[in-house]
Amino acid sequence: MTKRNRRDVFRLGAAAGATVIAGSVRGARGAAPPADNAWSNSLGHGVDGKPYGSPSPFEKSVVRRYVPWLSPTRDADASMTPLQDQPGIITSNGLFFERYHAGLPQVDPKAFRLMISGRVKRPLLLTLDQLMRYPSVSRIHFIECPANGATEWPAAQLNSLQLTHGMIGCAEWTGVLLSTLLDEAGLYSDSRWVCATGSDGAHMNRSLPMMKCLDDCMIAWGQNGEAVRPEQGYPARLVVPGWQGNVNVKWLRQIEVGPEPWMTREETSEYSELLADGTSLGFTWVMDAKSVITFPCPERPLTQGPGFYEIRGLAWSGRGKVRHVDVSLDGGVNFQRARLDHPILDKCLTRFTLPWWWDGKDALIQSRVTDETGYVQPTIVQKHRFWGADPVYGNNAIQTWQVLASGAVNNVQLS
Amino acid sequence: MTKRNRRDVFRLGAAAGATVIAGSVRGARGAAPPADNAWSNSLGHGVDGKPYGSPSPFEKSVVRRYVPWLSPTRDADASMTPLQDQPGIITSNGLFFERYHAGLPQVDPKAFRLMISGRVKRPLLLTLDQLMRYPSVSRIHFIECPANGATEWPAAQLNSLQLTHGMIGCAEWTGVLLSTLLDEAGLYSDSRWVCATGSDGAHMNRSLPMMKCLDDCMIAWGQNGEAVRPEQGYPARLVVPGWQGNVNVKWLRQIEVGPEPWMTREETSEYSELLADGTSLGFTWVMDAKSVITFPCPERPLTQGPGFYEIRGLAWSGRGKVRHVDVSLDGGVNFQRARLDHPILDKCLTRFTLPWWWDGKDALIQSRVTDETGYVQPTIVQKHRFWGADPVYGNNAIQTWQVLASGAVNNVQLS
Repeated sequence: MTKRNRRDVFRLGAAAGATVIAGSVRGARGAAPPADNAWSNSLGHGVDGKPYGSPSPFEKSVVRRYVPWLSPTRDADASMTPLQDQPGIITSNGLFFERYHAGLPQVDPKAFRLMISGRVKRPLLLTLDQLMRYPSVSRIHFIECPANGATEWPAAQLNSLQLTHGMIGCAEWTGVLLSTLLDEAGLYSDSRWVCATGSDGAHMNRSLPMMKCLDDCMIAWGQNGEAVRPEQGYPARLVVPGWQGNVNVKWLRQIEVGPEPWMTREETSEYSELLADGTSLGFTWVMDAKSVITFPCPERPLTQGPGFYEIRGLAWSGRGKVRHVDVSLDGGVNFQRARLDHPILDKCLTRFTLPWWWDGKDALIQSRVTDETGYVQPTIVQKHRFWGADPVYGNNAIQTWQVLASGAVNNVQLS
Repeated sequence: MTKRNRRDVFRLGAAAGATVIAGSVRGARGAAPPADNAWSNSLGHGVDGKPYGSPSPFEKSVVRRYVPWLSPTRDADASMTPLQDQPGIITSNGLFFERYHAGLPQVDPKAFRLMISGRVKRPLLLTLDQLMRYPSVSRIHFIECPANGATEWPAAQLNSLQLTHGMIGCAEWTGVLLSTLLDEAGLYSDSRWVCATGSDGAHMNRSLPMMKCLDDCMIAWGQNGEAVRPEQGYPARLVVPGWQGNVNVKWLRQIEVGPEPWMTREETSEYSELLADGTSLGFTWVMDAKSVITFPCPERPLTQGPGFYEIRGLAWSGRGKVRHVDVSLDGGVNFQRARLDHPILDKCLTRFTLPWWWDGKDALIQSRVTDETGYVQPTIVQKHRFWGADPVYGNNAIQTWQVLASGAVNNVQLS
């Protein structure tokens, strides 16, 4: 295992008798500056053009996508974030994955009410303005659907980073800690569980143990510089850092407190894992550590021939911070330690990179994260040993991308 | 000076014989859950609705705005970020302030070329694909126009947070360190300055000393989860962390290396400060530490009567990290230490909050940042003592908001 720093990149490049990357463009030596394009010789549109901006028209293929056969209807379905186009840890609000149980409700913020009820001393009924008066925090966290990667349990099925890993997004969430509201409402000694309910047509509801509610849960009204997006629960959603997406209830309407879990449909028939003995494993809340290489990937092949490339990817853990990421170029036989970009935050995406001199031959590239608890991302073989009989959720296995001599990249599974 | 923690908030509230915030809604005790709205009894649109999302239609007033009289034309003008609607440290790409010298060029990424030329051993001419192959980093930094607050030098003129402080934005920038490209091109002992030129109609160009170029400058192709926005320099811009916005050259086209600064129009006639003796102060690159209260503010008055509110704001420094922020409720006589949200990053916005029990009387609220170098944000009176004769740039003075008994908030200047 070799660790290389940035200086080494160029030293090795020099040893090979050429500048590492731009060798192919050294003909530019002494060249004139690039010719003026039309936009360099004219006035562009002014500041009255777009009060709310949008991406360049040349980026119009960068969109969320869904798998038509994954669900019988689009209103109980998911779309995926284009991770192959996400440069860093923040997911653009416009590209943040969607997951609906009854479609997207258009909530009028003036009609928004949040009720804190059940086993509390002082039930509360809050307008949005009242909710926003409470002491607030702002934190960057990922949210991932536990079904992220579900299609890949039996075999490598979808030749796409977006469709195999894109049910995740990461944003700066701003709002009120749930503990603040529960303090205000006042708990009893048997106020041990909370049921969060959304105002969508599915009345999506999930039980949460009080320990997590008093830890780091928040009711967010802000997302990456603006109000929480409609797709993410406008005007307010629950954020349960590191726990599976569906408990981060969107379009939040009620927080009920009680002594026991509610055993709702969404935690009995759904979001539980059928085991080999016919029983069901529920309340598998925490998203275990996971990572994936975002470049190269099926959507982003190597188009410039052999030579230097930077392997880039994202890693995360629902249990805390990323400790390190290892990258393999030979299907998991040898690993090298990747460089991590700062900040490295709790329950947040972490970006990693590794310099790579591609020799133009087939390669099997993988990333493997270790989180601060010491948990190591498993292989799909290891996962199958310990997980459900015909699993849907919880696929955090190491992803293998096969790089072909042509530069094309395929999704493969190693047995 | 009293420091209060969150538990104290509620203890004090209880002492006053009422829950602090929700006292007015205690009638909700035992109330039924909020009535179902139309969106709770119907299917919303599915995941095929918006491949690229947009804010709720109820947020349509959250937009960039400009001051019509600030510039004779819109294509050499600036629009401002609505900081009153920015919940955290990340600025939404759609709301990031604009500053054009010849309007917004629509650059075709296939025609993009970046030339590294002048006093270098190996001139480079790179396509966008080649640029993106280089080792990359991802970092969250603010960018601020040095004219931010220019209208407020003589007196409190614009009764608006957005228009007095909104020429700033903060994003996760992803790209290549300039030092990486300069290493690749190879420097001589007299390669002491760099001139960065944009491909817009203004051919906007600025000189930068090599020390900064080899420190933390980057050529960014990513912004908050997607390609750099057109308004921010698509497909690639220079990011010069902590330095005034205009040197962060957008739509970048050339990096020229030489022994001396170029003394371009933009650093002689523009972006320099006329002094009382008739000389001009140029190369005032670093954005000194600054902070502002974003709630309450003229656009966000206190609409719910006396009682608990959380003062919220943003602080930053072009010299490094924010060390602490102090808030005054009496026009700068007494200050209390504010709470800072993490992460606290280098040359990045930092969010601060302070709990406040408003007694319903007039108040003069201020924030004052101290950065990690020990620099303390000055008053406007102090600034006038040491700054230009009729200043345009560099207004980082403490902002005073006057809160009236009605809850309305005005921009005022204390002499």
